[in-house]
Amino acid sequence: MSLLDRERVKLWALQKIIGGELARFDTVFNELMTGESPLIESVCAHVRNGKSKRFRPTLLLLSAKSEGDVPDEAVVAAVCVEMIHTATLLHDDIIDEAVTRRGLPSVNQAWDTATALVMGDYLYSKALDVLSRSGLHVALNLLAGTTLKMSQAEMIQLQTRHDLGISEETYLDIIYRKTASLIESACMIGAGFHADHADRTVVFGEFGRKIGFVFQITDDIFDYLGDERRLGKPTGQDWEEGRITLPLIASLRQAPERQSSDLCERIGQLAPDQRALLWPDVKAFVLEHGGVDYARDLARRLGDEGKEALAPVAAGAQKDLLAVAVEYVLRRLN
Amino acid sequence: MSLLDRERVKLWALQKIIGGELARFDTVFNELMTGESPLIESVCAHVRNGKSKRFRPTLLLLSAKSEGDVPDEAVVAAVCVEMIHTATLLHDDIIDEAVTRRGLPSVNQAWDTATALVMGDYLYSKALDVLSRSGLHVALNLLAGTTLKMSQAEMIQLQTRHDLGISEETYLDIIYRKTASLIESACMIGAGFHADHADRTVVFGEFGRKIGFVFQITDDIFDYLGDERRLGKPTGQDWEEGRITLPLIASLRQAPERQSSDLCERIGQLAPDQRALLWPDVKAFVLEHGGVDYARDLARRLGDEGKEALAPVAAGAQKDLLAVAVEYVLRRLN
Repeated sequence: MSLLDRERVKLWALQKIIGGELARFDTVFNELMTGESPLIESVCAHVRNGKSKRFRPTLLLLSAKSEGDVPDEAVVAAVCVEMIHTATLLHDDIIDEAVTRRGLPSVNQAWDTATALVMGDYLYSKALDVLSRSGLHVALNLLAGTTLKMSQAEMIQLQTRHDLGISEETYLDIIYRKTASLIESACMIGAGFHADHADRTVVFGEFGRKIGFVFQITDDIFDYLGDERRLGKPTGQDWEEGRITLPLIASLRQAPERQSSDLCERIGQLAPDQRALLWPDVKAFVLEHGGVDYARDLARRLGDEGKEALAPVAAGAQKDLLAVAVEYVLRRLN
Repeated sequence: MSLLDRERVKLWALQKIIGGELARFDTVFNELMTGESPLIESVCAHVRNGKSKRFRPTLLLLSAKSEGDVPDEAVVAAVCVEMIHTATLLHDDIIDEAVTRRGLPSVNQAWDTATALVMGDYLYSKALDVLSRSGLHVALNLLAGTTLKMSQAEMIQLQTRHDLGISEETYLDIIYRKTASLIESACMIGAGFHADHADRTVVFGEFGRKIGFVFQITDDIFDYLGDERRLGKPTGQDWEEGRITLPLIASLRQAPERQSSDLCERIGQLAPDQRALLWPDVKAFVLEHGGVDYARDLARRLGDEGKEALAPVAAGAQKDLLAVAVEYVLRRLN
């Protein structure tokens, strides 16, 4: 069994507990991910065929279930969160000139840049329109703010491309806006369907934000840990795209100053589009100077904080499930 | 005085009557069109320097004023409409590989595709976030639906690129979603600020939709009418991008069948990216077979219908202004 399969099985073990809700999710997702024109329908069908882990919908539905029954509106909101996430992937793949996504050719590859661009706009605005028509105004307001944060993160990321001086603080700000804020909103939306637990949305937001950080930090670690851990994706992609992530930031800080400045100097001598050649050296430097260990420790600490955030939630099977979700994300590191 | 200047003067004559409101618009626009990071700020400053006609905000503010005083919320909504419009221009310019926009280099040209792509996402989501935070839920709901229509139009347009068999019905559906729906929403939002005239939003929506159709049809006519009418833009751009618009659709229908099929055959013998070479022949064909006249007649009829839609609005200076707005759009054709 490949690591990719093991990864899926572990998430599947978590997801089978909310199997009924995920089946409802799939039904609504397939209903809404259809097109009003033949080209929209073709791209929607392509996206429906991609293997999404449905990580954000899973957390939204778990958050809803831990506070009571899961209403149909929560399922609709989960679909809208997944559509927004998919929209950002379509646009990210244009920026990174990615050729595959979720085991299929990327939309920019299978069609072209224009189609991927407009379909991203389409899925994003369709999600907000569905929320609006469904009267899900709390979710609409939360997600309007979240999508703004996500685009801010992309702009900061474009601006700090290849910037070896990027601080851990800026890195954490980027991944909050880029990844954690959507997971934070997903958990808040899920918990928010139970009006008698309205104050719980804050608790679930804290939980979601922490698990969102953990999710992105582990993803960034995978970019350094070699093929078998990379869940089918090649390593060094972040480096190639000029994204300086926590393992490198930490190693540059922790290594003897002379070695850090030597590395930066060698990198600086190459034009940005030539720096992919230095990947073996960068990777060796990061592993030697403890950047992966530092990132892993931070991820574990944030994971613990995520579980602690749930303290106000009554003990029970549903609360345990959320702790299992944290373990799932962390266990990817073992 | 160039035609470009005359065009501006005519709109200016209309706009000076709501000069106070437009000054408030400019203040809020400049406040909100600022960035949370240096790169966002640079692009925002570039966009602020572009010469926008502020056509959509003008109609929103006129609609608000014709029903009473213009509240601050209407000014904020007008800014959000302009931001959404600007977002679509940034994305359109990527698709069309445009090098200029509003008298300046386009964002994709001055920076790159990635920056224009993400800044479009940023402006779009910022507009919705501002509406949400300002409690402008009616506007938020209307514009969520409108942006969905605009992306649908882009997809239909991509799909019907170079399609000489496109019907007038499909053309009108595209321009409704692409252009008229945002102007319709702008007028509805403006009128909607006066709760005692809530039923008027339907009237203003009808007015806005008609003037939106007129606006796009005249724009499509300009693509055929030669340099001096084109307000500084070259002609034949729609043809070059594969957009088949009403003048050609009407001429293909009105010309003797033999001549239409001859033209289509000659076009079909060339690869899409070679067809720009046939522009002189296409233009001559359109002018000879009355396509421009047909489009102009339809624009005038729709303009009259727009003015008639205002019948339920009490006679007065503000109502007259809206009729003047229709005349402004139509007069571009004289």
